Amino acid sequence: MSKKLEDYVIAIPDFPEEGVIFRDVTSILNSAEGFKLAIDELKARLEGVEFDAIAGLEARGFLFGTPLSYLMDKPFIPVRKKGKLPRETVQKTYDLEYGTATIEIHKDDVYKGEKIVLLDDLIATGGSLKAAAELFEELGCEIVKVVAVIELAGLNGREVMKGYDVDSVICYEGK
Amino acid sequence: MSKKLEDYVIAIPDFPEEGVIFRDVTSILNSAEGFKLAIDELKARLEGVEFDAIAGLEARGFLFGTPLSYLMDKPFIPVRKKGKLPRETVQKTYDLEYGTATIEIHKDDVYKGEKIVLLDDLIATGGSLKAAAELFEELGCEIVKVVAVIELAGLNGREVMKGYDVDSVICYEGK
Repeated sequence: MSKKLEDYVIAIPDFPEEGVIFRDVTSILNSAEGFKLAIDELKARLEGVEFDAIAGLEARGFLFGTPLSYLMDKPFIPVRKKGKLPRETVQKTYDLEYGTATIEIHKDDVYKGEKIVLLDDLIATGGSLKAAAELFEELGCEIVKVVAVIELAGLNGREVMKGYDVDSVICYEGK
Repeated sequence: MSKKLEDYVIAIPDFPEEGVIFRDVTSILNSAEGFKLAIDELKARLEGVEFDAIAGLEARGFLFGTPLSYLMDKPFIPVRKKGKLPRETVQKTYDLEYGTATIEIHKDDVYKGEKIVLLDDLIATGGSLKAAAELFEELGCEIVKVVAVIELAGLNGREVMKGYDVDSVICYEGK
C-alpha cells in the first residue's frame, strides 16, 4: 500500500508541554517521497485558483512555498520577522499569548489588486496567518487562498480565518 | 536578449554600511522567471554530482534548497539556528565578528557516509557554511559540494572553504 503524507509526520508526545502532541512537519523533508507528496498535494489544492504570487511565512513556510512557486511559475513573497528584509518594508504587529510579534514584507514586492496565495507549514491558532492576510489587504492585495501542510483543528485557526478560503493537506482533530 | 540572473538582483548601495554594496538575493524571488533561472542554474551545478541529500541554511538557504530537493528527488536537511528544531539535535558553535552563533540539525536526519550538498543563498566570509560542513563531517557525512546563488569574492569565503568543491551562480568581485 502506498504511504500517505501522514505517515511521514513524526508525532512528539508531550511537547512543548504535557498533553500536547507536537506534529513535526520537518520530518516530511527527510524523505524525498514524503516531500514530493506534500508539494504535490499543496499544488493540487491550487489547481484552478487564479493567483499572481505565493506568499510564505518565515521560516517553515519558505520550505514548502518556493517549490510551489517554481512549479506553478509564480513569484514568491517572503513574509519575514521584523528587521530581516533589506529593502523598504511594510509591517504588521499582532498579539501573541505573551507580548507581540511584528512581520513584514518588501513594499515593492506587491501591487494593488494582486491575487495572493498565503502559505504556511501549519495552521494552529491562525494568529500569524491572519496578520499576514491583513498586511497584504492593507496594501490593496486580495487573499484568494490560504494553504498549509498541517492543520490542528483543536486550536480553532479556521474560526480566526473566517471569510478566507482555507485548506490544509492533513487536518488533526486535537491541539 | 534574454535576461541573466544578475539582472534580477537588486543592489543596495551603502548598506548595511558605507562603501558596501548589498546584493539582495530575495529580489530574485519577485520574478517567476528570475527564480526559475536561479533554481535551474543551481541544478545545472549539481548534475553529475553523486549525493544523498541537500542541506540548506536557515532561512534564505531554505528558499533555494527545497525546490532543488523536489526537482532532484533528494531529502532536504534544514540547518537551523539553535532552539528551533523539535527532535534531538546536534550542534555546532562558531565565532562571529562579535560573539558566537550556534547552528543545529536533527540527529536522525543524517547517517554515516551520507553524501551531502550544502547550500546557502550567499557565500560571504564562509563562516556559517564552514561550521555547517564541520557539523556534518563530525557525524560521519561527506560534503560533496557547496553551492550558493551569490558569492562575494572580496570576503574570501573560498579561502575559508578551501578543500571543498565550492560553486556559485553569480560571483561579484567586491564585498
